[in-house]
Amino acid sequence: MKALGPIPAGFDAAGGILAIDGRSVTELIAEAGGTPLFVYSGDRIRQRVAALRAALPERVAIHYALKANPFLPVVELMSSLVDGFDIASGGELELVRATGVPLERVSFAGPGKRNAELEAAIRGGVTLNLESEGEARRAFAIAEKFGITPRMAIRVNPDFDLKGSGMKMGGGAKPFGIDAERVPALVREVVASGATWRGFHIFAGSQALDAEAVADTQRQTIALAGRLAEESGVDLPHCNLGGGFGIPYFPGDTPLDLAFVGEQLTASLRDLPDVLAETEFCVELGRYLVGEAGVYLAEVIDRKVSHGEVFLVTDGGLHHQLAASGNFGTVVRRNYPSAIATRFGAPVEEEATIVGCLCTPLDKLADRGGFPRADVGDLVAIFCAGAYGASASPATFLGQGPAREVLV
Amino acid sequence: MKALGPIPAGFDAAGGILAIDGRSVTELIAEAGGTPLFVYSGDRIRQRVAALRAALPERVAIHYALKANPFLPVVELMSSLVDGFDIASGGELELVRATGVPLERVSFAGPGKRNAELEAAIRGGVTLNLESEGEARRAFAIAEKFGITPRMAIRVNPDFDLKGSGMKMGGGAKPFGIDAERVPALVREVVASGATWRGFHIFAGSQALDAEAVADTQRQTIALAGRLAEESGVDLPHCNLGGGFGIPYFPGDTPLDLAFVGEQLTASLRDLPDVLAETEFCVELGRYLVGEAGVYLAEVIDRKVSHGEVFLVTDGGLHHQLAASGNFGTVVRRNYPSAIATRFGAPVEEEATIVGCLCTPLDKLADRGGFPRADVGDLVAIFCAGAYGASASPATFLGQGPAREVLV
Repeated sequence: MKALGPIPAGFDAAGGILAIDGRSVTELIAEAGGTPLFVYSGDRIRQRVAALRAALPERVAIHYALKANPFLPVVELMSSLVDGFDIASGGELELVRATGVPLERVSFAGPGKRNAELEAAIRGGVTLNLESEGEARRAFAIAEKFGITPRMAIRVNPDFDLKGSGMKMGGGAKPFGIDAERVPALVREVVASGATWRGFHIFAGSQALDAEAVADTQRQTIALAGRLAEESGVDLPHCNLGGGFGIPYFPGDTPLDLAFVGEQLTASLRDLPDVLAETEFCVELGRYLVGEAGVYLAEVIDRKVSHGEVFLVTDGGLHHQLAASGNFGTVVRRNYPSAIATRFGAPVEEEATIVGCLCTPLDKLADRGGFPRADVGDLVAIFCAGAYGASASPATFLGQGPAREVLV
Repeated sequence: MKALGPIPAGFDAAGGILAIDGRSVTELIAEAGGTPLFVYSGDRIRQRVAALRAALPERVAIHYALKANPFLPVVELMSSLVDGFDIASGGELELVRATGVPLERVSFAGPGKRNAELEAAIRGGVTLNLESEGEARRAFAIAEKFGITPRMAIRVNPDFDLKGSGMKMGGGAKPFGIDAERVPALVREVVASGATWRGFHIFAGSQALDAEAVADTQRQTIALAGRLAEESGVDLPHCNLGGGFGIPYFPGDTPLDLAFVGEQLTASLRDLPDVLAETEFCVELGRYLVGEAGVYLAEVIDRKVSHGEVFLVTDGGLHHQLAASGNFGTVVRRNYPSAIATRFGAPVEEEATIVGCLCTPLDKLADRGGFPRADVGDLVAIFCAGAYGASASPATFLGQGPAREVLV
């Protein structure tokens, strides 16, 4: 039997059925019209933001990286909770616009911004996180053409990375941002252009569970921002410290010690150099805000035994939950937290493999996990499905189509 | 410098620009309305089917596994070339229906067929490749409800696998098909139900380049079909021998020796047991028919240097070409064949990494390959993009959207 990842806190059974924000999943599925269904818990999201507010120093704003979950009701909820948004494409800009979020609270990062995207962002008053000198010059030209003063920040490729992070975004040659040593020259060019100077975006990695590593990276980020502002000869209006706060997905993972991160960040902000005295800081979080709030639900279509192994074949699959199948950014496949939602909390009775409906051996949602005995019609829950799920999976694969989604 | 996969035969330069079926890619892009664009070569597809016809014994029909590329014009072209189709969902059934293909030439495999999909298939006269006893009984009930005689085959989980295949579909506990030893009982149940008995579907693996292994698997498949038909006490009307024919993607890969496979299959069919004397055979191919016919084109949006390494940032990415990014079914990332399409055939001048526009380090299309020097506005071509590309990638990730597609 292979271990399953830890089910996030806050999910309980009501009469043996998994409940999300007090609503049983069978009821939620009936309302939504069927499975497969992503359910996002508004309570979990609100509690996560509140925990962050409590732990982080007041001076540090919270931004939401929309890419983690662009489901419109989630974005709308988030707009009432956080201080700003980070977008990664023109498509995400239109989504943010649809929620009515003031666009001066939005920044746009991404290494391959097309001219049309730069134009939409500049005209909307979005802050561009410039990824290269070439992009800066394209943006200057577009701003001039429309006679608009653009809001510009610089994404810095830091010389350090976030230790233990799931994805390293700094520490060597990278397609993201501008190498630190070239940043001061571009700052001066941006300021000289007459653009509204908005500061730095420094993102060293993501999905780290080690609070020491996160705190250490934040310290290094602040030091780098200070050094670069000093060298640039310009005060820093804003500094995006990046994210990196991870969530537990796999067996043995433990939650990030948020209190420790908050204490360390408070200490780091105590003795700032003059050039950062007036700087506004933010953290940019995606997965940490929404990942554990999401549950993916699928129905068991078939129960079959092959060579003594039990397979629960569901109507879901990697076309909605690519990461849970182990096919997105992971080398070794490990089990996400998962459960039989219609027998939630019941004792383990057998070893079973949960697969999707796709005709490929890649389509595995839980490999030889321990579950109560499930049959056709039972519901399967895959947890930690709130980030990089629906929008980061090949929904049209094998003629399937997107899952339903609902925010409760 | 890392090696690139081998560019498939049949792609030439016209005036330094990659041409596909005699049309320059710049012209094709202008007609299609821009990049990113998948171009599928009709000539390549026709030549591949012709090569198969020439190599395989006449008795063996060719079926197209639609999942490899469900782009409607490709499916329409294929309907004039092949003898049958294999579908994997109700969505694919609707697609085949739209092309006007007679549905008695279509079979439906897939471990998680919903009742609505079974119903649509039975009512349309599609052959069901039954994946379990449970599915068979659901299908019997639906057929009875509508007073229709269903066409039924059984997918067998073979006790052997295809050696060296990219994906093993047999040889042990699997969610696909029915373990061989339980097949005869289900054959008798299907025949007794009054269904039209359509035979076996035996799929041992995919993406093998070793002709010996493919031929050996076909021999084992025919032997298994004979043994199971014998044990069932029923002649076998049809036997789907599966696929497994691979295409070269990576450095060092060499094409499958199709002539050898054909010769060996001819020999295997020479001495069939009586129970297979009248059996129709087919191979079911997806990737082999369309994979090398497709080219993915993206435009260079930025050229940047980080710590001495060159990055070509394109407007494409893993949201269209997940497999080429190394994030779909591969453990170690290797480079697909790729080139600068606007300097096609020009000598290598530098080492460059081709990335997509997404804000994630996973979004890499070619890692430190050797290319002629490319700049903003140049076009990048990723080859072997005809199968499991557009439909097997997370098109909506980061607010992007699908690529354009065209068949020439």
